[in-house]
Amino acid sequence: MTTASTTAQPTSSAAPNGTRELAEFVVRTRFEDLSTDLVHHVRRSTIDCLGVALGAADHPSVQILLDTIDTLGGHPQATVWTTARRSSVAYAALVNGHLAHVLDYDDSYMPEVTILHGNAPVVPAALGVGEWLGVSGQAYVEAFALGFEVEARVALSAGRAHYGQGWHVTSTVGGLGAAAAAGKLLGLDEQQMTYALGIAGTQAGGLSEVLGSMSKGFHPGRAAMNGVLAALLAQRGFTSAEDILTGRRGFHYAFPSDRDIDAMVGELGRRWELRRAAFKAFACGIVVQPMIDAIIRLRDEHGVVAADVESIEARVNPTVLEPTGKTDPKTGLEGKFSVYHTAAVALIDGAAGPAQYTDERVLDSNVIDLRRRVRIVTDETLRKDEANVTLRLLDGRELTRYVPHGIGTAENPLTDEQLTRKFRSLVEPVMGPARADELLATLNRLEQLPAIGELTGLLARVSA
Amino acid sequence: MTTASTTAQPTSSAAPNGTRELAEFVVRTRFEDLSTDLVHHVRRSTIDCLGVALGAADHPSVQILLDTIDTLGGHPQATVWTTARRSSVAYAALVNGHLAHVLDYDDSYMPEVTILHGNAPVVPAALGVGEWLGVSGQAYVEAFALGFEVEARVALSAGRAHYGQGWHVTSTVGGLGAAAAAGKLLGLDEQQMTYALGIAGTQAGGLSEVLGSMSKGFHPGRAAMNGVLAALLAQRGFTSAEDILTGRRGFHYAFPSDRDIDAMVGELGRRWELRRAAFKAFACGIVVQPMIDAIIRLRDEHGVVAADVESIEARVNPTVLEPTGKTDPKTGLEGKFSVYHTAAVALIDGAAGPAQYTDERVLDSNVIDLRRRVRIVTDETLRKDEANVTLRLLDGRELTRYVPHGIGTAENPLTDEQLTRKFRSLVEPVMGPARADELLATLNRLEQLPAIGELTGLLARVSA
Repeated sequence: MTTASTTAQPTSSAAPNGTRELAEFVVRTRFEDLSTDLVHHVRRSTIDCLGVALGAADHPSVQILLDTIDTLGGHPQATVWTTARRSSVAYAALVNGHLAHVLDYDDSYMPEVTILHGNAPVVPAALGVGEWLGVSGQAYVEAFALGFEVEARVALSAGRAHYGQGWHVTSTVGGLGAAAAAGKLLGLDEQQMTYALGIAGTQAGGLSEVLGSMSKGFHPGRAAMNGVLAALLAQRGFTSAEDILTGRRGFHYAFPSDRDIDAMVGELGRRWELRRAAFKAFACGIVVQPMIDAIIRLRDEHGVVAADVESIEARVNPTVLEPTGKTDPKTGLEGKFSVYHTAAVALIDGAAGPAQYTDERVLDSNVIDLRRRVRIVTDETLRKDEANVTLRLLDGRELTRYVPHGIGTAENPLTDEQLTRKFRSLVEPVMGPARADELLATLNRLEQLPAIGELTGLLARVSA
Repeated sequence: MTTASTTAQPTSSAAPNGTRELAEFVVRTRFEDLSTDLVHHVRRSTIDCLGVALGAADHPSVQILLDTIDTLGGHPQATVWTTARRSSVAYAALVNGHLAHVLDYDDSYMPEVTILHGNAPVVPAALGVGEWLGVSGQAYVEAFALGFEVEARVALSAGRAHYGQGWHVTSTVGGLGAAAAAGKLLGLDEQQMTYALGIAGTQAGGLSEVLGSMSKGFHPGRAAMNGVLAALLAQRGFTSAEDILTGRRGFHYAFPSDRDIDAMVGELGRRWELRRAAFKAFACGIVVQPMIDAIIRLRDEHGVVAADVESIEARVNPTVLEPTGKTDPKTGLEGKFSVYHTAAVALIDGAAGPAQYTDERVLDSNVIDLRRRVRIVTDETLRKDEANVTLRLLDGRELTRYVPHGIGTAENPLTDEQLTRKFRSLVEPVMGPARADELLATLNRLEQLPAIGELTGLLARVSA
């Protein structure tokens, strides 16, 4: 069979170029275009991101990354958070992005079709490049808002098809957000921004197979570094695809994707996906948090202790078992991906913070005993932020609690006060209460800071 | 090649772990296990890779990469080829991998189901880490052979499904090869090697949408850097998936893949895919080279000049039009992805070297005039190394030439002498004839070098 071919489809055709639409949006939008509630949201995002990142200071994976970047070297351009180091904007982004995600306690953007933890790739890129360039708080807010918006819209567009196939969304789209944020601060023009997204997009990757290992936190670290590198290259004239996103062999065609292009480029500047980001109440995968909320309410409302419980049954959205189906976790990190461990510690401890995801807690015999009596029923009629939990007690009673929107979701967000409490609980053990106060005071006037260095200087470890 | 049927299995089951099989093979195999012809092949691979890399010294994209890595900084660990610089093993790998691919003149591994340019990710990783650690020529040969074998086997396993979907194979699998090579030199144990492949595999990416831009060369540069970083992290205890390749949400499940797992792990140490790698005779995509071969033969055998030609018709394998279908290239790089430009310059110049892929040559009016008279007929009955070209002359004659195996393919390889001539033609303009001689003499005793630094020292620019 032969086919004569006379035409190719070069990228210069008249088809809509989704990448250029995003690039144009990023280049033209200014701080003045952001409403007060968006600026407030950026402040909340930054507080949450820095809290969970600083709280991860002593995770063993962090020391390995530090040793590696020390081995490779780099100019001291940006603070490596929780250390006395400054490194290049690339490696600072790598470590800081990892710090911001490794506790699995960072923000969640969770429309029906996807899940993204958008802060970990973008805050490190924007803060690091901003620190290096000596920009103002307003410039940081602008860059973060735009970077987050780019990655969230690509995630939304890629949707269920993307999320369901083994791709870690935070990783695949994060580099695009980081490139947009870094590129905004570097003052890229529309063509350079298009190429920056191209260079970031062609580095996109990140397999869910690594969930439960140190490589999960590495994903947004790598994405942050990819984005910074992409913006630096594009600024200097490095070329890439004219349309990495909607081009024929681009992101939405090579990766599985719903290709909801309108979700990606519709209503730019009017619809802000950033408004839908929420902050976690518990230090584990977002999909199990409505269940935790229900278990803790039952425990607290009825004074239930583990010794009373015959079994725990939780009805949840089917996405819960995909990432968190580990029945027999061996490490703290694996525990975050075990809905069984999570249910057990939520009932025993009434909490699901970093202390519930240590190796010791995962191997505790009481926890193991209870987690064997956890039963998960998936129910497609439940949304991802819903859960229905029944405790069967040894005395024959059954206690049931339905949670329509788990705490820490967009419909039931942490208050500013709860967010501050979360920040303190994570930062004080690492930095001390005085530094935590100072950080919060600085963060609360984020958009008024003449120089973002006033904030980033406080992210260095006090004594180390 | 049998197609293994594989079922989705969680990594905790007793399913075969393809990643660990590869890791075990890499860890146990020694120089002594390599036959003489394989060592000869490694020498040829290294000569070809360094020739095309040094020949790319003055490509404008290279200066941009150099400026970027200078901006970021790093310890002087490995030579950045064609410069007076040493940089970290990570950034040296980035630039050297780009150098090795940007001319599209590097090696081709081309079984029926895929196409891989395997040197560009692996030679820079192995030479750079080898230089840093001060290893012997034998250790380099060992590391390169194993690194190439890993990436080639993953490419072969992923096969047509992978190649056809917008993924640039050299990029997606290259980091795995680079990690294996770097990890071998770093002395990783089996668990560390498994994690190194995990960290590299979860960084895999690279979209064909960027073909024709500077980002194509960036792909293997990035892959080389990814692999080096993965090996350094794994050496220090960073964890990853236990089975990044055949795990349920791993490489062969997230990416489109034929999942021919037997091709990936069968006959390890007995079947060497490295033997099937070939070296290009022309500086463009491998799939158009049989056509070039046929056109140059017709031109030389019949003394045809452009003014005699009414039209050129080439019957080729259908994969030709996918990467090289640009009808109206505007830059030298785009010209490499235009079978029309390539046919025209092959007839006019009797060549398809770097001089045929400059911006000037692509915009030449005679070339443009002739390329409009090129017709490509795709024919599924032709293999990728076959072509059948007919020239229709203005005097009414038709001249036809069938090429069963284009020069520079595994079945019709360049001789050692042709390879040496290619090396000189690329290296002498950059380094001068004396340095080219010295390099060839050193390369010809590659496996006898007490220290690989003897070779890498010669890759620095003589005066710059």
